[in-house]
Amino acid sequence: MINVQLAAPAAYWAEYEAPLTRALKAAGMDADLSMDHAPEDVDYIVYAPHPEMQDFTPFKRCKAVLSLWAGVEKIVGNQTLTMPLTRMVDPGLKKGMVEFVTGHVLRYHLGMDQHILVQDGVWRHKAPPLAQDRKVTILGLGELGSSCAEMLVQLGFQVRGWARSPRELAGVACFSGADGMKAALDGAEIIVLLLPDTPETENVLDAEAMSWLAHGASILNPGRGPLIDDDALLAALDNGRVAHATLDVFRVEPLPAEHPYWAHPNVTVTPHIASETRADTASEVIAENIRRSEAGEPLLYVVDRAAGY
Amino acid sequence: MINVQLAAPAAYWAEYEAPLTRALKAAGMDADLSMDHAPEDVDYIVYAPHPEMQDFTPFKRCKAVLSLWAGVEKIVGNQTLTMPLTRMVDPGLKKGMVEFVTGHVLRYHLGMDQHILVQDGVWRHKAPPLAQDRKVTILGLGELGSSCAEMLVQLGFQVRGWARSPRELAGVACFSGADGMKAALDGAEIIVLLLPDTPETENVLDAEAMSWLAHGASILNPGRGPLIDDDALLAALDNGRVAHATLDVFRVEPLPAEHPYWAHPNVTVTPHIASETRADTASEVIAENIRRSEAGEPLLYVVDRAAGY
Repeated sequence: MINVQLAAPAAYWAEYEAPLTRALKAAGMDADLSMDHAPEDVDYIVYAPHPEMQDFTPFKRCKAVLSLWAGVEKIVGNQTLTMPLTRMVDPGLKKGMVEFVTGHVLRYHLGMDQHILVQDGVWRHKAPPLAQDRKVTILGLGELGSSCAEMLVQLGFQVRGWARSPRELAGVACFSGADGMKAALDGAEIIVLLLPDTPETENVLDAEAMSWLAHGASILNPGRGPLIDDDALLAALDNGRVAHATLDVFRVEPLPAEHPYWAHPNVTVTPHIASETRADTASEVIAENIRRSEAGEPLLYVVDRAAGY
Repeated sequence: MINVQLAAPAAYWAEYEAPLTRALKAAGMDADLSMDHAPEDVDYIVYAPHPEMQDFTPFKRCKAVLSLWAGVEKIVGNQTLTMPLTRMVDPGLKKGMVEFVTGHVLRYHLGMDQHILVQDGVWRHKAPPLAQDRKVTILGLGELGSSCAEMLVQLGFQVRGWARSPRELAGVACFSGADGMKAALDGAEIIVLLLPDTPETENVLDAEAMSWLAHGASILNPGRGPLIDDDALLAALDNGRVAHATLDVFRVEPLPAEHPYWAHPNVTVTPHIASETRADTASEVIAENIRRSEAGEPLLYVVDRAAGY
């Protein structure tokens, strides 16, 4: 019997009990899923961030901590976490992100807002340019960023990408390292932030980075809140350097009602809906990793603790 | 010397003189492009609808009329037009249509408007379903409809299509004929109209067809105005049968400022910008057809006068 502890806010139980139990059974695991195993009896921890789960020391025989979140910034630095940590790479989450990013890039490209917001009876016939004449840059070429880049290439956009380490993607001009950032952002009309939240990526989109963009560029951030220097963005929105920002993630969530982003005419706040882990598909990933661990096979999506993701 | 007459509103000259001259030269044609050739000297007519061009009888030696428009409903019925007629299939126009349709289908799928229109500081966390759970139907599977269908399939949508005659498209459930229409529309959540404007397609989206859609479906019409029974659509919008319509084409364009579509809260009027012929790419298509005609090769995109497109 394998004891699997769901270490997550209580609400997760209703969402994950059935699909996770089903997935473990399908993977041939004789597992006992609970939120209340005695720490010393736990073989695997299925994790989502919550206050009560800060000390992993009592979980002496736990073989791995399997995160339900793609972003592990809230746990990767935990010194008591000495067992392997995996992040979630959920096919459902990836699909949702591609749909959100493709939709909002096309929204900017087509200038949809002027029609959605202004229906004044005036016929302003002006067709948008083709995607092949539109410069889009994606910061972050991991599982999510590279999938979004592929779809934007299919639509014909001029796509550039940046990643910490060198990458190769068909149809995408890839840049990397600190010196590659300017070349990736230079003249970009639409940029998409899909970097992980690490000390190196904090405020990666600051005043200087924004100064490299095309004048009146649009920004889409479905990644992580700290990637953006909020004061610099508000200033760039006010002076027109940046025409519009659609922000799905924030340093504090829910974004407080009094935050200037809500009131700014050139900001669209979305409530962290770009994509989310789907219980069914995520449970299959968790079950597969437990199966691998029990079979002595390497785990999928192991977090590089030094890199932070 | 081949005499090519640009028979179009005056504004077309500034747009087409250079690219068409360039394209004809590149095709090896020794052509004289003008808007003022004597009718009896004209070898080819490059056509866009305008009032002064109703009688083709004087163009006795004209070998073909080459339309700059994809839709030929304004000319196909002209009894004085006895020479071959070709319609425009412009790669630029096709790309633009795929971008517009993909963007607006994703806008509906993601529920973008609620975020673009409502920024009230309330954090409503609800992620949309995946495209694989969204039913989209495209009426019309010609050059434009089939290209749009392919992209929506790539994004994972459940795509159905309808065409007058049977079609086969990878990943698309294709229906045809009068009896196929109900199966194509049954339960559809988002529908896209890309049929040609013919007597058979007038009011194809009427009250009965709308009754087959999912309750609260969304409609996108980048095709032709007469495809929709306007009174039936307004009634369906008012009773909620149809949640929203984005209309790019109308029976009368520009759409009069007093038309109820402008004022309806659940209608987005766009000023015929879904896509348009691009002078550069269209000129290459025209030049290629003149080259083919001179070389005795079959013309591309010849209009089926009986079918009307």
